[in-house]
Order: sequence, then structure tokens, then C-alpha cells
Amino acid sequence: MNAYQPVTADMFTLLEQVLKGSQQVRALPPFAEIDADLMQQVLEEAGKFVAEVVAPLNRDGDEIGCRFEQGRVISPPGFRDAYQAFWQAGWPALAAAPEDGGQGLPSVLEVMLYEMLCGANHGWTMAPGLLHGAYECIKHHASEELKERFLAKVASGEWLATMCLTEPHAGSDLGLARTRATPLPDGRYALQGTKIFISGGEHDLSDNIVHLVLARLPDAPPGPRGLSLFLVPKFYDDGSRSAVHCERIEEKMGLHGSATCVMRFDDAASWIVGQPGKGLNAMFVMMNAARLHVAMQGIGLLDAAWQKADAYARERRQMRAPGRKAGAAEADLIIEHPAVQRMLDTQRAWVDGGRVLAYRTGIELDRIRHADASQAERAQRWCALVTPVLKAAWTHQAFHGGSECLQVFGGHGYVREWGIEQILRDARVAMIYEGTNEIQAIDLLVRKILPDGAASLNALLDDLAHELDHTGRERLERLRQCTHQVIAAAAQDVTVAYRVADDYLRAFTLVLLDWAWQRIDSTLEVNTPDMATRWQAPARALRTWVLPEGEMRCGIISSLVESSSPVHA
Amino acid sequence: MNAYQPVTADMFTLLEQVLKGSQQVRALPPFAEIDADLMQQVLEEAGKFVAEVVAPLNRDGDEIGCRFEQGRVISPPGFRDAYQAFWQAGWPALAAAPEDGGQGLPSVLEVMLYEMLCGANHGWTMAPGLLHGAYECIKHHASEELKERFLAKVASGEWLATMCLTEPHAGSDLGLARTRATPLPDGRYALQGTKIFISGGEHDLSDNIVHLVLARLPDAPPGPRGLSLFLVPKFYDDGSRSAVHCERIEEKMGLHGSATCVMRFDDAASWIVGQPGKGLNAMFVMMNAARLHVAMQGIGLLDAAWQKADAYARERRQMRAPGRKAGAAEADLIIEHPAVQRMLDTQRAWVDGGRVLAYRTGIELDRIRHADASQAERAQRWCALVTPVLKAAWTHQAFHGGSECLQVFGGHGYVREWGIEQILRDARVAMIYEGTNEIQAIDLLVRKILPDGAASLNALLDDLAHELDHTGRERLERLRQCTHQVIAAAAQDVTVAYRVADDYLRAFTLVLLDWAWQRIDSTLEVNTPDMATRWQAPARALRTWVLPEGEMRCGIISSLVESSSPVHA
Repeated sequence: MNAYQPVTADMFTLLEQVLKGSQQVRALPPFAEIDADLMQQVLEEAGKFVAEVVAPLNRDGDEIGCRFEQGRVISPPGFRDAYQAFWQAGWPALAAAPEDGGQGLPSVLEVMLYEMLCGANHGWTMAPGLLHGAYECIKHHASEELKERFLAKVASGEWLATMCLTEPHAGSDLGLARTRATPLPDGRYALQGTKIFISGGEHDLSDNIVHLVLARLPDAPPGPRGLSLFLVPKFYDDGSRSAVHCERIEEKMGLHGSATCVMRFDDAASWIVGQPGKGLNAMFVMMNAARLHVAMQGIGLLDAAWQKADAYARERRQMRAPGRKAGAAEADLIIEHPAVQRMLDTQRAWVDGGRVLAYRTGIELDRIRHADASQAERAQRWCALVTPVLKAAWTHQAFHGGSECLQVFGGHGYVREWGIEQILRDARVAMIYEGTNEIQAIDLLVRKILPDGAASLNALLDDLAHELDHTGRERLERLRQCTHQVIAAAAQDVTVAYRVADDYLRAFTLVLLDWAWQRIDSTLEVNTPDMATRWQAPARALRTWVLPEGEMRCGIISSLVESSSPVHA
Repeated sequence: MNAYQPVTADMFTLLEQVLKGSQQVRALPPFAEIDADLMQQVLEEAGKFVAEVVAPLNRDGDEIGCRFEQGRVISPPGFRDAYQAFWQAGWPALAAAPEDGGQGLPSVLEVMLYEMLCGANHGWTMAPGLLHGAYECIKHHASEELKERFLAKVASGEWLATMCLTEPHAGSDLGLARTRATPLPDGRYALQGTKIFISGGEHDLSDNIVHLVLARLPDAPPGPRGLSLFLVPKFYDDGSRSAVHCERIEEKMGLHGSATCVMRFDDAASWIVGQPGKGLNAMFVMMNAARLHVAMQGIGLLDAAWQKADAYARERRQMRAPGRKAGAAEADLIIEHPAVQRMLDTQRAWVDGGRVLAYRTGIELDRIRHADASQAERAQRWCALVTPVLKAAWTHQAFHGGSECLQVFGGHGYVREWGIEQILRDARVAMIYEGTNEIQAIDLLVRKILPDGAASLNALLDDLAHELDHTGRERLERLRQCTHQVIAAAAQDVTVAYRVADDYLRAFTLVLLDWAWQRIDSTLEVNTPDMATRWQAPARALRTWVLPEGEMRCGIISSLVESSSPVHA
């Protein structure tokens, strides 16, 4: 079994040649000193750490997994040491602000780091993956006293963090949450309730765990506006243990390297974070970043699956490839067979296209924070519209396209030995958490496109259109047309938007993917035959097999809109 | 967790109302006495056995699985008892010939039995699933002496059977197999070699196991024509054990209830089955039946996934469904949400459409054996063309559509408790074995359509066209047009057929599915509002979300053909 190898050279090519990454970030005041060399160096160091420390633990993470013993979670072999090395080397604080002890590097480098970490070891990466949202949340919403106690520890990653949102009856619908927060005489709150699906709710990776918990104050109204956010650590300053207990961990399809915990809060003394009733707002602050993080899981895992399948296809021989004459070997490499080429090239098109979109989104995240108002607004528009697409489409692809990679192995793909089936099992959850993919589609269409009559979408499409060829522009205009149909129909009957949302997200995905690859085609200097194969084969596969879905989705949307229009319309 | 429930009423409706099943089989001489009541009664008895005996073992089959101890395989709890009850009740011999101790019932009932068995417990069903091919193989190719020893025991299922084909270097390419057969003085052959991926190579379900093994005689030419077929039992008549050993069992993604064995043959004394060098022919005899069997795994598993998701969607409440006013409950059932309806209705369309096609194929299998020459030829044409489609498209759907059903559960789908993730893990292998889905596509286009210039396909399409509406006929003609394009291009360059094969199989699938549902629509008496919902919701989902893919695939095929045409063509 070959382990995942970070492909920092390709990643850097896309960042620097295709997206002009260093130039983009250098235009932002905090990054004036950053140049391409530094970014490349950080990437390469990250790649080295991932390959040497994190990737080798992936198999045991799956096979041994997290064990639960009397309230304690024992991580798979090597996980704690690797995590300790990770935070001590400063990786969690890569993009954190210098005033919080961070390195102050651009977010896009963090995005790229997480692509590699997830490709190498999705289970292990769940732990630090949750830090960044907690950091933002504490930084922007917590009181000075709380920041004093927790911010630096979370920024550095010395203490890990959780998000305690879901309850047995409140999954996609957090408004149903029932966990109660009762004021204590000392100004703190006693948390009482049970949360489920808490990744890293308990573990031995770090010396403390900081829980961010949604709960209701006694006088809170029902629904989402009654939720406030609270912070409770596993251990308080004085070393005493809080009344937060892990009741059990879930048996899951995959992701065994990460404990998914049922957490019980037995009047656990906690602090409020932000204003009463504003719990969801505090959480939404970090939503784009967290969704982008999940998208990177998709891209990383799909690349890991692709790498395995590609390597296998270059050493396994079966049958004569069509049109080939008998050669020295008794059969041809399976990479010579058209079906195998189709599967590999298509998935590679998704990986690289996803990278361009995700890295650009990473750059836009920095623009939101550091650019002038008009640029920040444009960046905000990009992130708002593209992030749900990245999350939904690339987690979908990691699983379904990962299955194509598994197929390259034939029967060997189904046995655990080759490690490809683990990728599918691990990847499946990413289609669900951080908002199911169906909720991403609703977020995109119902919350982000309908309310402003697609003004923001149209502005983004205008920007993209400049870079597209004739066919690409036609596809883009077809999406615009669908959008207007949906807006008109939804004015009569809002349910129509919900009915077309999933198809709509796919159609938009394909326009973005088309743009990403046209950007690659137009910016990349292809100097060698190897480079031509590297970039042209996936581009061809994209045009042949992937992009035609766009027209199909637009047709489905139009027919759904038409069939739902009232007769008098 | 709700276990799979056989839906014999729906199945019988499709068989009898939609396909006129009893009338069709009664026209064949051996089935002159069979009527609808008898068929329904057999189905219901089968459903009862499946629900009471087989379904309850599925979870342990996955969680405990088969264990390997010093050459022995210990089946999961209850598996042996269930199997003993199964064969003693006569189920394996349902469609076997009366002269072999069988019940002589139509094959379509066996097909329907296996849909239920696979839906209930894919792992357990692997064992009897392999019997039928072995029975046909021994019946048609073995010497009288061998039949005397083995035929009745295999027909009844008292002894289970294996197919030992694959070797470490010979998967899709059996011609690379190296296992040797050396003549012994007593007319038998000593088998020497290693076979992998042998389902049920060793177990404790039955008192003996009959292995059918592909191997090479000393003077055999290389490649597939050098392969002969041999039979070696686990125990000989005198009770002595043969030199066939299970070396280990594979750790797999799923299907833990079935041991996938590495089998070592240490000069095991065996008998030849059929003529030297004709081993693959003997195996190909049973290929259509075996592929149809795998298709039934797809349909059964997809139905099992659908049942779980549907039940969950009718008890889980999350959020207000779009357009709904606040009701008594704090949230609406998730089945009220359009995305959930889409996922459920679409998968149901695949299940029922697959049933119509598969049951018809079961009837055609009986026609091949028992109808007059012209009818048998037509039946042969149907089976040759439709079987690879059923195998590829419905195993694909069990996994990818099963994933949609998992999605209905949100995070609960990812934990083992609900049993839906097991379905995905089990189903994945069916896309690979019995010829990968890519090989099914090549079989369809390159082996079955190109050689006769699509004459046979066109005859089948002519039959279907009579039953299609205007849009359906347009889609069918579009497929015909693509077919001619491919034939013309393949005359210049055969590789083009391999490049379009997967898209071609999908395009053909959708024409067949369209026919199946138009048949349902035109034959089913819908008398009640419940029945209307039952059948109209999936029909609508089919037209909205499934059928549009046909035009997309045809477009891809045309563009591939055009881009590969030589300039002078």
C-alpha cells in the first residue's frame, strides 16, 4: 500500500502560476513582506511534516481506531505524539494573528495545509481542524477575561476545541436544541444536557479541551433565537475537572481515527460567549471557514484516492488494451485501457479544478479581512457563493469519484489491504457534517441568491465571463437564464427553489469548474510533453465527461420550474 | 434499526399485472400447470422465510462476520442453521429440473427469491447464490459419472459450491491464470496453484463444498484457450479430505458475512469437467444467470436502503418544510422536505424499473430453455443485451443511490446503529465481481452490438418502440443514431468503442428504464390515492431527474465519436 504523498509542486503551480497567489496576498497590508519563495517554502515544510509524521498513522487510525474505556478515549498509536509535534511546530497558528501568538501567514496556506493533512489522514486531522473556528469564535465574541484564559492556548493548538451543537433531536435543525444553561451566583452558567456527534469531545491528544456549547437560558424563546453560546473546558485553571463527560463514542462507517462522542453536561460550570440569544450568530462567523475546511477534506481525499489508483494502474497488467499489438509482457498496463483513463483523468480534473477554486477562496478570505471595503465586498460575495459549492460538490466527489478510483483496483479495491476503501468510508461523512450537502444547496440558492434577486451572483458571473471562451460563456448564460426562471417562479411559490436547489448547485459547480480549468489552460506554461500530459488529459476529460452535466442540470431546473408554475402565470 | 421486509405484494404486482408473468410462463410446456395463485403463494412463502430466518442474521453477519481459525472458517451466529433450513425446505432447487430433484418452477421465481435474500442479507446469500451456476455447469458439461456423484447434491443445495477463477495476477483477465492440472494415473488430475477472491471457499454452512476450478493442462497453450475446468470437492466419497486449503480470508470493506478465501491447491485430485481447453466455455454457459443474480443483489440492496430511509423520513422531524405553516409539532417530518422526496422517489424509480427489467429477463431465461426456436432466439437476444445493463446499472445504483438513502439519515446514516452504512459497504463489491461494470459495458457494445452491426439491438429496440410514447421513441431513436455513429467510427478505429462503452451502457439503461416505467404506467390499475402516490411519485421522479441523463450520454458519445474520427472520414 502506497501512502498519500503531498504534491506540493502541483499545488504551488496552481497557487502561483494560475492564481498569482503571492502577488494577490502581497497587495494586502499584513502580507506586504510575503513573497512566492516564502509561500513555497512553507508549503514544502508542511508537505514534509504531513508525509513524515501524519500520513504513516492513517492505517492504524482506521484499523485500531479510537477506543473508549470508562469515560476516556484512547487515541490510535502515534496520534498524540504527532499532534504534540504539530502544535509545537506552530502549524495550527500558521494563519492566526501575531498578536494572538500566530504566524500571521495568509489563510490560503492554511487551506493548502489542510488539503494535505486530510489527504494523508482524515481522522487525525479532525482534531486540529476544529481549532480554527473556535479561535475565530473566541477572538470575536468572547469577553476579555475569557480571551485571557483561552485564546492563546486555542490559537497555538496547545488545547484542542470542540463545537457542541447537535442533539439527538436537533441535527440540521439546531433550533430544536434543548440543552439548558442556568445562571450561577458567580456569573457563570450551569450547562445541563446531552450533545451528540461531538468530534473530539474527549481524547488524549492535548492536555485540555475547550468546548463551545449551544444552550438555552431559562427565559429563552423557542427556536434558533433562543440559543446562546457557552464555553466550558475539560479542566479549569485550578486543574479540577469540569462536569462534562463522554458517555460513549459512536461506531461509524469510517473516520475511526476521530472519536465521535456523546457528551453529557451535568451542570457543568461554563462562561457565556457573546450575547444571550446570539449563539448561532457567533457560530455562523466561522461557517465559511469551516465549510471550506470540509471542502479541503473532499479535495485531499479525492487526491489520495486518485494517487492510489494511478499508481496501481501503472503497475497492474490485465489484457491487451484495445488497438494494441502483442508486446513483450503478456498483458498491457491497465492505465492503457480507456475506461481506466476515463476514471483517472476525470477525477484529476475535479481535484485540480477544486484546488483552483479553493485556493482562490482562501485568498478571498484574507481579502475579506484585510482589503479595502469594495474589494472586501467582492471577496465576501465570492466566499458566500462559492463556499457552499466547494463543500457540497467536492465532498460528493470524494465519495463518488473516490469510488471510481476504487474501481480501478477491481477486486483488490474492495479489500482493506490497499487502503482505498478506507478513503470512501472516511469521505462519506463529509457529505453530511458542517451542513448536509442538501443544506448547502438551499444556502446557496434560497439564502444567497434569491434574496437580492441574484444581483450578487450576476456580479460574480460577470467577473467570470471575461475569462471564459465562447462555449463557457454560453454555459454561464444558460445558468443565468435558469436563475431568472427560478427567481420568477419562486416569487409565486417559494417551494420551487427548494425543489431545484440541488440541481442548481450542480449547474453552478460546473460553471465554476469550467472557469477554473480555463484559467489553468490560459495561464500555465506547458513546456514539456510530461507537463502536457499532466494538464491536458484532465482538461480533456473535463470537457468530455464532466461539463455536459451542466446543460442537463439546467434542463432539469427549467422543466421543474415550468411544471410548478401556476397556470395563470 | 428496522430490518428489510420483503415487499412481495409490490413484486407480484409488477410480475403479474405489468409483465403478465403467469400467462407468459404458462405458454412454456413445462409450466403449463402454473398459475398466478401458485406463483404468488411461492413468493409469499419465500418472503416469509427471508423475513423470519435470513434477515435477522444480517447485522451479526456484518459485525461478527466470518472468522478464520487454523484453516477453518467459522460462519457468523445462526448462518449454518439458516442455511440448513433453507436447503431442506427446497429453496435452492426451486427452479432446478425435476429429474435432478428440483421443483421445476420458473426461473423468474428464483430471480425474485434472490432479490429478497440479497436485500435481507447479502453476505449469507453469497453461499446459495453460487449454487445455480455450479448446477448448470455440472448438468451441461460434466460426465455421467461426475453427475452421479455431485449433481443432485448441488441441485438441492445440500452441498455448496464455489467458482475458483481469479488468481493474484489474473482478475478480469482469466487468460493469465497459471494453476496447473497434471494427469494422474487414475484418470483424475492433480491441481496445483493458488486462487484468490473465492467466495465461500471454506465454511461450515454445508457438510461438503464442491469447487469448480479453472486450470491449465501441461500441454495447454497460453491465454484463455488453454484453460480447462476441474471439479474437486472438500471431501471425497470416502470421507477423506482433499488437498484444497484455505490459507486466509480477506479483510474487506463489507460483506463480512461471506468469507472471501485465498485457496491453495496442493496437487488436489480432481476431475475434468467438459473438454480440455473448453474451461471458459463451460463457465460462460452460466454467465447470464450469474450476472442477473448480481443485478438482483443491486435491486435488493437498493430496496433495503430505500426502505430504511423511507421509514426514517416518516418519523424524523427537522425544520419547517418550505411553504408549510407552523403545525402542532415543532418541526415537520423530513419526508416533507423536497430534497428528501427527490432522493427517495428517485431511488424507488430505480428499484421498480429494475424489477420490471429483471423479472422480464427471468421469464426470458425460461423462454430460452423451453420456447420454440424463434421465441428462444428473441429471448436470447433480450438476455444477451439486457443482462450486462442490469448488472452494471443496478449495482452502480445500489451503491450510489444507496448513498442517497444514507443521506436521508444525516449524521445518523454514518453510524452503524441504523444499518444503512452496511448496505453501502456490502453493495460496493457488486460493481466489481462477475465482471466489473466497465467490462459489462464492453461486453454490451463491443461483443454484442458491434459484431452484427446492431442488428440484434435494433430488433430489440423495434420491440420496445411500440410501447413507448412520443418522447420515449425520440430518446430511443437518439440511441439508435449514436449506435450507428459508433459502428461507423469503430470500423476505422476499434478503440472508439471502448472509449464510449460506459456512456453507451448508461444511455441504453435509460431507454430500458423508460420502457419499464411506461409499461408500469400503461398496465397498472391505480384505484386508490395510496396506489397513486405509490406509483406516480417515482414515475415523476424518473422523468424529472433520471431520464434526462440519456440525452447527456448520447451527446457525450457523439462528441467522442466525432473527436476520434480520422480527418479523411
